[in-house]
Amino acid sequence: MYTPSADQSLSEAYNLTKYRVGGNGFRSIGVLKAALEQVEDHMESDIYGTGKVIEQFQEKIAKFLGKETAVFFPSGTMAQQIALRVWCDELGTRKVAYHPLCHLEIHEQDGLKELHYIEPILLADKDRLITLNDVQNLKEDIACLLIELPQREIGGQLPEYSELAEISRHCRAKGIKLHLDGARLFEVLPYYQKTAAEICELFDSVYVSFYKGIGGIAGAILAGNETFTAESKIWKRRHGGDLISLYPYIISSEYYFNLRMGKMGEYYEGAKGLAEKFNHCYSIETRPIQPVSNMFHVMFDAPKEKVEHVLVEFYQETDVGITGNLREYTDTTCYCEISIGDQYAMIPDEVIEEAFTLLGRKMKELN
Amino acid sequence: MYTPSADQSLSEAYNLTKYRVGGNGFRSIGVLKAALEQVEDHMESDIYGTGKVIEQFQEKIAKFLGKETAVFFPSGTMAQQIALRVWCDELGTRKVAYHPLCHLEIHEQDGLKELHYIEPILLADKDRLITLNDVQNLKEDIACLLIELPQREIGGQLPEYSELAEISRHCRAKGIKLHLDGARLFEVLPYYQKTAAEICELFDSVYVSFYKGIGGIAGAILAGNETFTAESKIWKRRHGGDLISLYPYIISSEYYFNLRMGKMGEYYEGAKGLAEKFNHCYSIETRPIQPVSNMFHVMFDAPKEKVEHVLVEFYQETDVGITGNLREYTDTTCYCEISIGDQYAMIPDEVIEEAFTLLGRKMKELN
Repeated sequence: MYTPSADQSLSEAYNLTKYRVGGNGFRSIGVLKAALEQVEDHMESDIYGTGKVIEQFQEKIAKFLGKETAVFFPSGTMAQQIALRVWCDELGTRKVAYHPLCHLEIHEQDGLKELHYIEPILLADKDRLITLNDVQNLKEDIACLLIELPQREIGGQLPEYSELAEISRHCRAKGIKLHLDGARLFEVLPYYQKTAAEICELFDSVYVSFYKGIGGIAGAILAGNETFTAESKIWKRRHGGDLISLYPYIISSEYYFNLRMGKMGEYYEGAKGLAEKFNHCYSIETRPIQPVSNMFHVMFDAPKEKVEHVLVEFYQETDVGITGNLREYTDTTCYCEISIGDQYAMIPDEVIEEAFTLLGRKMKELN
Repeated sequence: MYTPSADQSLSEAYNLTKYRVGGNGFRSIGVLKAALEQVEDHMESDIYGTGKVIEQFQEKIAKFLGKETAVFFPSGTMAQQIALRVWCDELGTRKVAYHPLCHLEIHEQDGLKELHYIEPILLADKDRLITLNDVQNLKEDIACLLIELPQREIGGQLPEYSELAEISRHCRAKGIKLHLDGARLFEVLPYYQKTAAEICELFDSVYVSFYKGIGGIAGAILAGNETFTAESKIWKRRHGGDLISLYPYIISSEYYFNLRMGKMGEYYEGAKGLAEKFNHCYSIETRPIQPVSNMFHVMFDAPKEKVEHVLVEFYQETDVGITGNLREYTDTTCYCEISIGDQYAMIPDEVIEEAFTLLGRKMKELN
């Protein structure tokens, strides 16, 4: 059944498991092929942002988000820098505010600063959400506040809708544009019990991704009013994102949006159930304790190398994969990210139960 | 056989023709599907610029171009701005030089200036190539000179290889980096009777495209030494071009590169033959008179609306399409661009002969 090997790396051992608690499955070329199967060969490509395939999808998602217009982008990195730039130009200042662990701050090689000369004010501490109070205490004039729902780097936490609404009212009163980093917006709708449009109406502009919970190949939508999106298209060309053909991403985004949008509730319930199992294990706690989306972090109260060793053995013995990527949190703790997709429901209940009994025991033995 | 309609637009009439003198065929989704057919479903996606599918293709093209390393980009717009930026940073100046009709100057919404604050010096007149003399007379310190082979906006003209070699020697002596806009590099190899590597060794960095003569979906390669490409990857992320998956473009680029790289000679011969036929028509001249690649411009010595009317009738009567996009050149002249691909060879000789006899007659009647 498995080949125990003491020196197997975590990712190698993970890749050999039969079951995986997170994700929608292996990112293989088959994912694209499946999306293309139902499309006629003679269907026309989009051409530099025009054509039926791109325009129809943009309209569909604009409507879903309750916004006037939407633009398809190859990446969220591009879409969000541009969103902030457009608001900065409109308000005549190059300052914005966002969370210290915002994607733009830690994952984009400082594109916002290097390409747009925009200075971000970091709101809140690294390990908690931005609050209304943080926004009210902002001393500097900013063009735009970016809020990420859920705040990925702290396990996917969410403010209550009422606080979000107050932040939105405050920003509108102060003439601050509010931008939504909705990389995982679809994934939080079951918790809020709101439509996407009800969330998005609090924001002036919205970015959503199609390869997180949706599980597409790549691609993003930026939505807002007509002036905003028209301006964003000019910047899209400047960034080199106005490709002659974006249809491989558009067609797959739409295919997996249709396939998985209705399953966000199932993923959310799965995340809550799975987090509970982790929290029953010795020296393991999830962040947040009770997930508010399909994602959460698993915090191990033990050093990375030790947990890695436990997990490799655990994968070999149970055939259940938790993660291929464990990250150091402090010298004596580590963590990983879990996002529930289609794969969780495929694991038989008894396999999960046995596995978590074993994981609890192994973690206890560590101490 | 056809439905004559006086008020049919040029592009509508063109789209109804059975034969087309230019191009590789309709840009439909079938183009991608054909490229994917030979790929196994379980083949792994690239992940943020890593993985077999992207690394192998980058190595293959680096070798083909005779460069140390290569990076796959979603677009040439992104690749070339970044190439110039990397050279500017290395040389400590934000000045470059290129042709007045360079892609960066006229098709990119000034991304180079708006995102990189790079000031281009425009060399040569709009209607001719950059010469060694132009480069020698450059008064300002520049980081990089960009040369486009062939110079698309003037019909795809080329300097002789010996002049190119002298420009390269001059730049090296002066410490100026030389960048090749090789959007159509593959298409000029038959004229030069050189390998791509023999052309590229004159340049410090090279961009090539996979959807011009190659006929892929989209995508570009930027090649150069290791320091250069490593730096370009950082900027690729900043621009939002470091997508989680670029494989739809990579697989199709490789598929059509393998399919059409060997046909560039056939396209070049086709272009020469077709240009000759145009040049036999009254009031029509190609630019250049004898093509040096698969492309040329057709210059009509009559106002755009009149030529449009002639072409619509011509398409309806012959079923042969020349262009769907006629552009004004002066008030009394107009032109279109022709790039020979697979479609030209599919037109029976007698259809072409009859068609051009008719075109000559129609153009004569105009005057």
